[in-house]
Amino acid sequence: MAPKYAPSLRSRLPPLLLFLQTTFILLYYFSTELDRNVDGLVFNNFYPVFQDLNVMIFMGFGFLGSFLVRYGFSASGFNFLIAVIATQWALLLNGMESWYYSGKIRIGLRSLAVAEMCTASVLISIGAVQGKTNHVQLILMALLEVFGLVLNEWLLQTLLSTRPTHGIMVLHIFGTFFGLVLTWILCRQESDQGFEKEKLDHKSGLFSMLGTVFLWIFWPSFNSILADDHFPEQKLRAVCSTYLALAVSAVASVAVSVLSSPKGKIHPASFQSCLFAGGVAVGVCVSVIRYPWEAMTVGLAAAVVSTTGFRYLKRHMLFGFECHDTRSILSTHGLPGVLGWLTHLLLQMKQCDDHTMAVRFAVFHISVLLITITVSLIMGIITGALLKWPTWRPPQDKKCFDDQAFWTFEHLAVRK
Amino acid sequence: MAPKYAPSLRSRLPPLLLFLQTTFILLYYFSTELDRNVDGLVFNNFYPVFQDLNVMIFMGFGFLGSFLVRYGFSASGFNFLIAVIATQWALLLNGMESWYYSGKIRIGLRSLAVAEMCTASVLISIGAVQGKTNHVQLILMALLEVFGLVLNEWLLQTLLSTRPTHGIMVLHIFGTFFGLVLTWILCRQESDQGFEKEKLDHKSGLFSMLGTVFLWIFWPSFNSILADDHFPEQKLRAVCSTYLALAVSAVASVAVSVLSSPKGKIHPASFQSCLFAGGVAVGVCVSVIRYPWEAMTVGLAAAVVSTTGFRYLKRHMLFGFECHDTRSILSTHGLPGVLGWLTHLLLQMKQCDDHTMAVRFAVFHISVLLITITVSLIMGIITGALLKWPTWRPPQDKKCFDDQAFWTFEHLAVRK
Amino acid sequence: MAPKYAPSLRSRLPPLLLFLQTTFILLYYFSTELDRNVDGLVFNNFYPVFQDLNVMIFMGFGFLGSFLVRYGFSASGFNFLIAVIATQWALLLNGMESWYYSGKIRIGLRSLAVAEMCTASVLISIGAVQGKTNHVQLILMALLEVFGLVLNEWLLQTLLSTRPTHGIMVLHIFGTFFGLVLTWILCRQESDQGFEKEKLDHKSGLFSMLGTVFLWIFWPSFNSILADDHFPEQKLRAVCSTYLALAVSAVASVAVSVLSSPKGKIHPASFQSCLFAGGVAVGVCVSVIRYPWEAMTVGLAAAVVSTTGFRYLKRHMLFGFECHDTRSILSTHGLPGVLGWLTHLLLQMKQCDDHTMAVRFAVFHISVLLITITVSLIMGIITGALLKWPTWRPPQDKKCFDDQAFWTFEHLAVRK
Repeated sequence: MAPKYAPSLRSRLPPLLLFLQTTFILLYYFSTELDRNVDGLVFNNFYPVFQDLNVMIFMGFGFLGSFLVRYGFSASGFNFLIAVIATQWALLLNGMESWYYSGKIRIGLRSLAVAEMCTASVLISIGAVQGKTNHVQLILMALLEVFGLVLNEWLLQTLLSTRPTHGIMVLHIFGTFFGLVLTWILCRQESDQGFEKEKLDHKSGLFSMLGTVFLWIFWPSFNSILADDHFPEQKLRAVCSTYLALAVSAVASVAVSVLSSPKGKIHPASFQSCLFAGGVAVGVCVSVIRYPWEAMTVGLAAAVVSTTGFRYLKRHMLFGFECHDTRSILSTHGLPGVLGWLTHLLLQMKQCDDHTMAVRFAVFHISVLLITITVSLIMGIITGALLKWPTWRPPQDKKCFDDQAFWTFEHLAVRK
Repeated sequence: MAPKYAPSLRSRLPPLLLFLQTTFILLYYFSTELDRNVDGLVFNNFYPVFQDLNVMIFMGFGFLGSFLVRYGFSASGFNFLIAVIATQWALLLNGMESWYYSGKIRIGLRSLAVAEMCTASVLISIGAVQGKTNHVQLILMALLEVFGLVLNEWLLQTLLSTRPTHGIMVLHIFGTFFGLVLTWILCRQESDQGFEKEKLDHKSGLFSMLGTVFLWIFWPSFNSILADDHFPEQKLRAVCSTYLALAVSAVASVAVSVLSSPKGKIHPASFQSCLFAGGVAVGVCVSVIRYPWEAMTVGLAAAVVSTTGFRYLKRHMLFGFECHDTRSILSTHGLPGVLGWLTHLLLQMKQCDDHTMAVRFAVFHISVLLITITVSLIMGIITGALLKWPTWRPPQDKKCFDDQAFWTFEHLAVRK
Repeated sequence: MAPKYAPSLRSRLPPLLLFLQTTFILLYYFSTELDRNVDGLVFNNFYPVFQDLNVMIFMGFGFLGSFLVRYGFSASGFNFLIAVIATQWALLLNGMESWYYSGKIRIGLRSLAVAEMCTASVLISIGAVQGKTNHVQLILMALLEVFGLVLNEWLLQTLLSTRPTHGIMVLHIFGTFFGLVLTWILCRQESDQGFEKEKLDHKSGLFSMLGTVFLWIFWPSFNSILADDHFPEQKLRAVCSTYLALAVSAVASVAVSVLSSPKGKIHPASFQSCLFAGGVAVGVCVSVIRYPWEAMTVGLAAAVVSTTGFRYLKRHMLFGFECHDTRSILSTHGLPGVLGWLTHLLLQMKQCDDHTMAVRFAVFHISVLLITITVSLIMGIITGALLKWPTWRPPQDKKCFDDQAFWTFEHLAVRK
């Protein structure tokens, strides 16, 4: 009655989860305390935006992936599981420095939000390997990727002393490259012909639409949450720029999706993926944007690049590089992220009066990108090598993209 | 392989969208700037309510229409597309006056919210023609309707110098009459027998329920968002009155729906449509409501009128006036809006001590309604005449209410 | 054409609803007014959390129950109907004291939130009888349960003069025991073999997942909404403790669900039910939690107890006590609630320096639990005796868990 792969999962997942969780509790016991110096005003202002972020992380990213017709539970449930593990882990690793100096990691809304930003990066990477991995692999991947993100941030701070504004760029670009390397290493033979169950139906597509819409709505919160509370203009700039860029990229993604379709119709997956391309790009370069039209132009360019990438690049990645990118994170997060990085570079250099300053900034900015990509590729290769190990027993090809491999539906069809 | 109507859509939608979007960016380049005098406290208080409004506009209205079994993607996707276009356009038109005087339109959260209120009116109108129009027609309609709304507001201000409290009334009534005229002009032969695909199934009904519930929850934000921040009592009054009226109208809409059903069951569409009738009516007259019971009575009356209208008027509109009202906006927004207007008139006159004042108010109040209805009818007729042009190639009768006409589902049934 | 049970419903529901609603309006007319002394800052801080609570009550609890494949409309729609009735009723009963002393009940955001907390308790109880009762029964049950809650609170205040921090404990424990007694009294023969339509399908499960995720996200708002605004540390503690406990209980519920499944797979209903066990337990004892690890340990224990209870206790309750608990509220709210109560007792006694104080606290704390359980059992028996009356005509066994008994779907399958 029990299929062959069950013993491995059964014997591995619960001990792993319980071991992880008790370890976390022990580490929290020795190193954390709740923040006691709470400013009521700051707390009350931060809380609603923090909840917007939670809706994005736990609901938005989860339901985004539920377009796969038989994979809705895994898409939303595993997203949930990974998110709570990655956040707990990121909270610890992000606090290492303060633990080293003061002996305690202070937990407050801001540190939770910073940890969830790392989680967002993990959830982006999961988009590339979704459906072809089991939950044990995803958990290991999340742990290693959060470690990579913190390592990368530490390297950036040590070597370049970056400002925290680079956080959002790193998050998108690290997540994309890490995920792509991973899916390249974990590539399977059958990918070329396509997986049997990698398709959507009308209702599962609507669940995915729901996730997309919530992500779109709260993207301004995502881009402004870490802005300094003492400079409301910066917050307003982040919110309005993101809003306008998102609006433009929604329009452009429909236009390009229709243009690139042989029948002149809108491709739902393309529409959904590229809807928030503008938000990604603007998030990366928001600190140099001064006027609404700049944000809108970035949004337009990001949507065009992203939709075109979705249409042509995804297929090339698969056949040319054997890189099967389930949710096409390259065109959703990677290309707009790089575009935003480029915009940041160009606008910052234009705003510099001094030539030397401009060159210094360019060198600095290019170094940030190169270090991030290098660390993400190295960590991706290490993680991939670990996850390729047959001991994790990934789902067989015909069990890919199928909830039945992980979830039991006892009441589903027959009477109890 | 490509059906006959495809070339027309293919050749028209992308150029239209890209032309519109680049024009918008150019106009924004010449006329807009971000607001620089941001009060941190006001921003932080406004932002969560602004996000509530976004959930209503982009998620609530979109999923409200997804009860149509094969039209879920178009209902939510086109709602999205129209909303972002209408908001960008309304932002420009609303700022014309400040552009005329100071050369710049300042973009901040409040101006975005005002623009989204215009968008709400457009989304109400779309409810009447949903499923029987293509996206090009919807875009043209949105552009003309926003123009009509701004023209109407300008007329009201010039002729009567109204206070902004009339905004919510205008929004519901303009949207309803504009939409009704439009669907009357665009009427088709087949409407009488009913469209083949205009039906719901159990799951698409639940998506619609989801949209309805979110609209219901955030309706107090909708009615209070433009209240003056310096008078928190007004905000509280708007929020609590709307909440109580919504609660009462939920109870009453179930009661009347069961009463008017031959089998004594609840009609899901009727329940969903009339759930927020109280919110519409109270929104229109909130400035004169003093006590909880007044709001509750208005909510009760609105739900009774709205549910009865849904049950009997929708059919009469179709057979008597050849006016096929898909989402039955007449009973959802029109009747409660007029009821709220009437309540405003009666309560305000009762509260006036002076007879002359009361008569002056009545004349003023009736003028507002008549001007709004006139402008909405004229703009509706103009828009209808334009959209009836066969060059837009609306979907054929058997393609109405069908996502397949606009969306491509390549992975749907067969393996790639 | 009209089935036999229709006349009874038709003749009873609308008069009941209209009578209730007009009575409420009359009572509100005589006894309520809007709060006039509104502090703008407090209002603006409270409003977003109030909206989070609304999402939980009206959307979260409603869609949580929509996993039943043919019961989605009733689960979400009746939840809605009961919630608005219970909130109006609770608002009146909660304000009795201030009405007695000052002649008026002041309605503001805080009183609405307190009323919705009572509603949450009613919605928990409904989980036990869901699908086996009709709407008339649910309404009567809601009215009696709110009365019981207020009576219980009055007894606690009179006999023990409790602080309001016990509110969340009472809510979970009262709701659970009331619901369990009710479902035990209303037990049917067929329960033993299972109901024909009590099963989920993949899509209805996803709707339920959506409700669960929103409940999970906003649970920190639920636990912190009534915290005193003047002590932001308390709010932060409630929010962060709940967040961490929820995260841990998500991990643990997956682990235990896989461990207790013969095939080593995750049970969706178990996963969803136990996801927020940690939030329930921490909510009950948040006032004595000092460190993050304490909250996490409570979350771990709650999830283990809750998942184990779901797996084994539900079946025992059914066969041993003839107590068919549809949404298994015993393991979702009851066990974590009692666990939280126990944690509160132990931690508080440990924190007491003085032995006498500790004993006094223990006696007091145990009395609170015993009084609450006694009142809930008595009220449950009274309500059950009333609802068992055949005049309410509950759905026949084969009509249980079926929307068709209450909702009409005229456009569903055939063309109009």
